Amino acid sequence: MSSLDIFTGETIGTAVLILLGGGVCAAVTLKRSKAFNAGWVAITFGWGFAVLTGAYISAGLSGAHLNPAVTVGLAIKGATPWGDLPVYFAGQLLGAMIGALLVWATYAGQFRDHLTSAEAVELKSANPGQVHGVFFTSPEIRNSVQNLATEVIATVVLVLAILTQSTIPGVSPDSPKGPGVLGAMITAFVVVGIGLSLGGPTGYAINPVRDLGPRIVHALLPLPNKGGSDWGYAWIPVVGPLLGGAIAGGIYQLAFA
Amino acid sequence: MSSLDIFTGETIGTAVLILLGGGVCAAVTLKRSKAFNAGWVAITFGWGFAVLTGAYISAGLSGAHLNPAVTVGLAIKGATPWGDLPVYFAGQLLGAMIGALLVWATYAGQFRDHLTSAEAVELKSANPGQVHGVFFTSPEIRNSVQNLATEVIATVVLVLAILTQSTIPGVSPDSPKGPGVLGAMITAFVVVGIGLSLGGPTGYAINPVRDLGPRIVHALLPLPNKGGSDWGYAWIPVVGPLLGGAIAGGIYQLAFA
Amino acid sequence: MSSLDIFTGETIGTAVLILLGGGVCAAVTLKRSKAFNAGWVAITFGWGFAVLTGAYISAGLSGAHLNPAVTVGLAIKGATPWGDLPVYFAGQLLGAMIGALLVWATYAGQFRDHLTSAEAVELKSANPGQVHGVFFTSPEIRNSVQNLATEVIATVVLVLAILTQSTIPGVSPDSPKGPGVLGAMITAFVVVGIGLSLGGPTGYAINPVRDLGPRIVHALLPLPNKGGSDWGYAWIPVVGPLLGGAIAGGIYQLAFA
Amino acid sequence: MSSLDIFTGETIGTAVLILLGGGVCAAVTLKRSKAFNAGWVAITFGWGFAVLTGAYISAGLSGAHLNPAVTVGLAIKGATPWGDLPVYFAGQLLGAMIGALLVWATYAGQFRDHLTSAEAVELKSANPGQVHGVFFTSPEIRNSVQNLATEVIATVVLVLAILTQSTIPGVSPDSPKGPGVLGAMITAFVVVGIGLSLGGPTGYAINPVRDLGPRIVHALLPLPNKGGSDWGYAWIPVVGPLLGGAIAGGIYQLAFA
Repeated sequence: MSSLDIFTGETIGTAVLILLGGGVCAAVTLKRSKAFNAGWVAITFGWGFAVLTGAYISAGLSGAHLNPAVTVGLAIKGATPWGDLPVYFAGQLLGAMIGALLVWATYAGQFRDHLTSAEAVELKSANPGQVHGVFFTSPEIRNSVQNLATEVIATVVLVLAILTQSTIPGVSPDSPKGPGVLGAMITAFVVVGIGLSLGGPTGYAINPVRDLGPRIVHALLPLPNKGGSDWGYAWIPVVGPLLGGAIAGGIYQLAFA
Repeated sequence: MSSLDIFTGETIGTAVLILLGGGVCAAVTLKRSKAFNAGWVAITFGWGFAVLTGAYISAGLSGAHLNPAVTVGLAIKGATPWGDLPVYFAGQLLGAMIGALLVWATYAGQFRDHLTSAEAVELKSANPGQVHGVFFTSPEIRNSVQNLATEVIATVVLVLAILTQSTIPGVSPDSPKGPGVLGAMITAFVVVGIGLSLGGPTGYAINPVRDLGPRIVHALLPLPNKGGSDWGYAWIPVVGPLLGGAIAGGIYQLAFA
Repeated sequence: MSSLDIFTGETIGTAVLILLGGGVCAAVTLKRSKAFNAGWVAITFGWGFAVLTGAYISAGLSGAHLNPAVTVGLAIKGATPWGDLPVYFAGQLLGAMIGALLVWATYAGQFRDHLTSAEAVELKSANPGQVHGVFFTSPEIRNSVQNLATEVIATVVLVLAILTQSTIPGVSPDSPKGPGVLGAMITAFVVVGIGLSLGGPTGYAINPVRDLGPRIVHALLPLPNKGGSDWGYAWIPVVGPLLGGAIAGGIYQLAFA
Repeated sequence: MSSLDIFTGETIGTAVLILLGGGVCAAVTLKRSKAFNAGWVAITFGWGFAVLTGAYISAGLSGAHLNPAVTVGLAIKGATPWGDLPVYFAGQLLGAMIGALLVWATYAGQFRDHLTSAEAVELKSANPGQVHGVFFTSPEIRNSVQNLATEVIATVVLVLAILTQSTIPGVSPDSPKGPGVLGAMITAFVVVGIGLSLGGPTGYAINPVRDLGPRIVHALLPLPNKGGSDWGYAWIPVVGPLLGGAIAGGIYQLAFA
């Protein structure tokens, strides 16, 4: 694959991933949305099909990593050249920021209504970041060690499930063109499963750019009453998933290679 | 494919799509239905499996477009001859109208009960179109630019995911006989994802005939207390998806071809 | 396929279908079940995966019809010999009765508790058949023409989706050994879709033995306060689906053959 | 397959199965989790995708049994050598214990908060085992014969669906490398179906180590106010599934071999 293909594929694919993933959070969070309060099942399937859609769109161009933790795991496995990492990361971060902007464009009316309602103005002092969940993750109980551990564990499951796809009968071995149609469907259902099972404590970033890209956009967007962008927590959903991806790569090399 | 096959396939396939898609809206909206108030997850999976069912039934005859926005995108890609468009569109619009009639036939008792209940008669002046959601989409916040943008963005995702299927390892390239069994399953899950993530503001028409066909049927059906057919909004779910399909075709030609 | 294989496959497969399908109704209906009140999404996916499980188990033996309406449709298509119909029907009806007995065996404690609770005894005169939904379908609004129409329409969708599978690229043509792994998955999702979209008025029997077999078992089982078996309605979920299967066969011959 | 591969695959695969399966129970049960009270649909899909994830990760190493009942069924079928059973069982039990520890590590903050809240302290005397459902199953109505029957029936469905996969057109026959990508997806959806339909009375262990491994961990973990580990019930989710697996093996040999 050329660097241009990688960059284009990861940018478009990650933009779609974050548009749909952030979109389901907006759909469930914002009051004048038809999906308001649709619940955790809606959120987790929404993110799973976001992965599926972004992966199918970008599989042919870049192999559909869409996640630096996946790229690190595949590099440790030897399926992605280390030299390609900067291009992957750049496309992923840019795509995540574009995706967050598209969420805002899709739900602009809802954001305006939600953030300027009497309730929002009143709540502002008590809970200034009430729409932050559309952009970035926050832990339910703030504890750096605990939150980091949760993100590491969840990401190990994700990346190990991707790395081992080449060992499943019926899925083609890693090719430069990505995991193929069944591999992407597996990954999507694995992501739904991780959300349902391991998303409770931190909201399962399991992807550095999924959290960092939209957080940057949240900081820049001139939304009224948007609250702070919680930069104190921002390192955990970056470091945790990168660590998890590396650990998964190590487990793969030890037990499956 | 012969014009007759295209017309037959699109008519039957779109009729099934709208029967099941409008059906789930009826199931969740009408009071004497076992699925009353089943929620947004039910609606979005209902529409996804409506696409899946209509697509599988028509794949062998017409390639299962079922949506003028998809046909436009495939024409721009070069996978569908421009000369076939009128036949596709005619079958799709006719099918959508037949589907809406079948929804009414399936739920005739529920419509009658719902629309003649004391509550319906009382609500009539305040909200005369309470069953309109079974037939056509309405925005939560009415704003032409915003609503159009939402429909364009959602349709770009849908059509781009369909156009790029030929680039995924394991899915056969475009054939006159449609995307095949796995391609149709991908599309169905993508539609669930778009509904969950991007359906909040406008109810995701993402298909001109899905909205226009049933709206015409709503205008013609002699339902009591049915309210107006909201023709002022009707152009947005037609123009938005067509624009989205064309933009997706353009993105495909630029980045994926 | 030998008659013994057909009979064995249909008996076991339909028993599993009804065990899981009736089971999810018991799970959601009976008060001392962990799934009590789990909702319509649970019921429709439960029935879909019931079809999937029964179909996979019986595909290799009998081709996994599990439904006389499907058998009629396949006979009209020419994919099943007319002479095999009695063996199919016998296995299907026997299997459905065994399945209903297994539901009772699985939930015996819950049935006993539910039917002898103070509330059940009190409700008995007002609504004596409160657990009948575990065994057979009932319309929300009783109207023979309307209810028959709903069952016919829903079954046409089901059987047409099965008959056309041989026309989809990537699914093997009809073989004596059934639709294969992807065909069975398609059918399962189609059944979920039919439930979500068309199940509201009558509870979607769409299968004569799914309703008749468990109704016979309900009539025979010595459950306290079980209420009547509503034999006045029993012909509709038998005749409607058979008509629907025949109409689907006709549509297939006209438009797809 | 070497014994080391079997042991490694079953240990890692079962650890992932229990991490995700126990995880969804923690997610829905513990108060400071984003998925608190997400409902039965979340739990059953969570367990289904837990099976899917664990199965895909271990398919290439050990064939992804992850369940002694499955191993027994495959041994009776002749697809797994009897001599391999101790290695399978050892890996499965160890993996289940590791998985339960990982659930605790992922949700440590939530466990602490939940178990030391004022409500927990107050409830302790009335219901000391309020988080036990994260670790092991309990019947809604305690009755050994009834509970055993439920577990036997549910496990027969599971194991029969796995044993018959080799008879489905389109799924490769049993290979030492496991059921392949589609087989694992079938099994995952079958598990969702069993949960929805047959999980109501006992919480569907359908796997001896799924219950025993985490129960041992529950007994050992120094959680405050954790309550007893209910050893009086512990034999049922071990014996029931083993019996069910053996019966499924017998049915397979009689009717399908």
